[in-house]
Amino acid sequence: MNKKALYNNIRKKDSFLCIGLDTDLDRIPKHLLDLDDPIYAFNKAIIDATSHLCVAYKPNTAFYETYGPQGLISLKKTIDYIPDDIMVIADAKRGDIGNTSKMYAKSFFEYYGADAITVAPYMGYDSVKPFLDYDGKWVIILGLTSNKGSQDFQQLKLENGSKLYESVLKTTANYGSTENTMFVIGATQSEYIAEVRSIVPDHFFLVPGVGAQGGSLQEVADNGINNYVGLLVNSSRGIIYASPDKDFAEKAAEKAAILQTQMKEILKQKESILEPFAQ
Amino acid sequence: MNKKALYNNIRKKDSFLCIGLDTDLDRIPKHLLDLDDPIYAFNKAIIDATSHLCVAYKPNTAFYETYGPQGLISLKKTIDYIPDDIMVIADAKRGDIGNTSKMYAKSFFEYYGADAITVAPYMGYDSVKPFLDYDGKWVIILGLTSNKGSQDFQQLKLENGSKLYESVLKTTANYGSTENTMFVIGATQSEYIAEVRSIVPDHFFLVPGVGAQGGSLQEVADNGINNYVGLLVNSSRGIIYASPDKDFAEKAAEKAAILQTQMKEILKQKESILEPFAQ
Repeated sequence: MNKKALYNNIRKKDSFLCIGLDTDLDRIPKHLLDLDDPIYAFNKAIIDATSHLCVAYKPNTAFYETYGPQGLISLKKTIDYIPDDIMVIADAKRGDIGNTSKMYAKSFFEYYGADAITVAPYMGYDSVKPFLDYDGKWVIILGLTSNKGSQDFQQLKLENGSKLYESVLKTTANYGSTENTMFVIGATQSEYIAEVRSIVPDHFFLVPGVGAQGGSLQEVADNGINNYVGLLVNSSRGIIYASPDKDFAEKAAEKAAILQTQMKEILKQKESILEPFAQ
Repeated sequence: MNKKALYNNIRKKDSFLCIGLDTDLDRIPKHLLDLDDPIYAFNKAIIDATSHLCVAYKPNTAFYETYGPQGLISLKKTIDYIPDDIMVIADAKRGDIGNTSKMYAKSFFEYYGADAITVAPYMGYDSVKPFLDYDGKWVIILGLTSNKGSQDFQQLKLENGSKLYESVLKTTANYGSTENTMFVIGATQSEYIAEVRSIVPDHFFLVPGVGAQGGSLQEVADNGINNYVGLLVNSSRGIIYASPDKDFAEKAAEKAAILQTQMKEILKQKESILEPFAQ
């Protein structure tokens, strides 16, 4: 999926919502556990109920890997089921030397058919390059996360006065282009979004942490929107675990609709700065 | 596997060799491709031929993931087949927020039964902590790698004059202890081994890059050995792809034996500094 297709989809649906499929057998409704593939059954119902409200789904691969090969079968079925016009982000946070990253790229882009993968930057250019070799696919580099441990290294001050995450953004922005690279930017401290936007004005950001983790959507948008919107805002648990009962998909759709309605309003506010889209 | 068991095994076998199981269908002997599970068949033969020469096997998970769930079945069978007294290192380079790292820990330590996992440090303490919660299991943190991209961030100079990788070593050494934490330290520039050893004198290092990638074993040992040996030296392609023919396992054992013989000699040289081991 290229940038234009993503952007047009955002405008068409009035939504920049990404729904995180962090599907956990301990948290899905109990009545699903008797089925052959409860994870897929859960995801399918969530996708059916919410696909008109979002432009991306983000399965967190750890939640599938934890069940061994069977979990990966559920992941493959889930990705296959997601409508083609919706971006699939494999939240895998991979990164290794070139030879190995090539294998990960093959796995997620060819075998599973994801459109994008999250990637850890610590090993540098050759660990990211193999993912960039795929046309129409995206790498989403861990820029600034909002977990407590992000203080340990991401916020370290460098000799030149900038912080490590700023250097990561500047350097990795040059690995690819705004057509194949995004950044993970945590939302809980929204002042950072403005700062990060000034460093990489034209890239898309994948912003987790709105909802369950407490970031405010309006603040994120005010600080982060650019003329191609440039934001995919993710919510996982706040949507998919809205109800522990048989009405889980319906309740998930209600939660997703609340966010999508806010996003529609925000896109209306910002219309003057947005690029026209091809109908 | 605790530190004492690992150390005794090194002394008993006169070996600190780790064999990397980077098993690639494009590189294994053609006659195996007709079998039901060529990856497992290849690994089984390699393990049978080399298990007396090494103290660890390191399957690189990307090579299994690239084939989807079937590859993960081969990985599980391989790990199950490795003798219990040999350390299994899942070279997975995972790292995510706590909630997600917990899922990865569950996957590799509980489902697959690995003894150790390689972990990327960029997200900090809470991304590593869940792996440390398992008794008798190890995290192996990416400290200093020897790929070209290691220049991009690992070698960045910090405000306090140290380099990022030095800060990563110092900080992450305090996450756990020498009983549950090791570091990946690339071998191609052996002067770094001495420097890293001075920062973390008591930890084990997993050292890739001896063999195919060109580091010298004697130099690594001279700069890196401590009184618990403190080194696991990995060779992957140089051993497992020693022959493309039916004699692949035999040739792999020959290559592994060359390294083990050097290691035996090195351990003899260094005997005066080594701790006694329980017979």
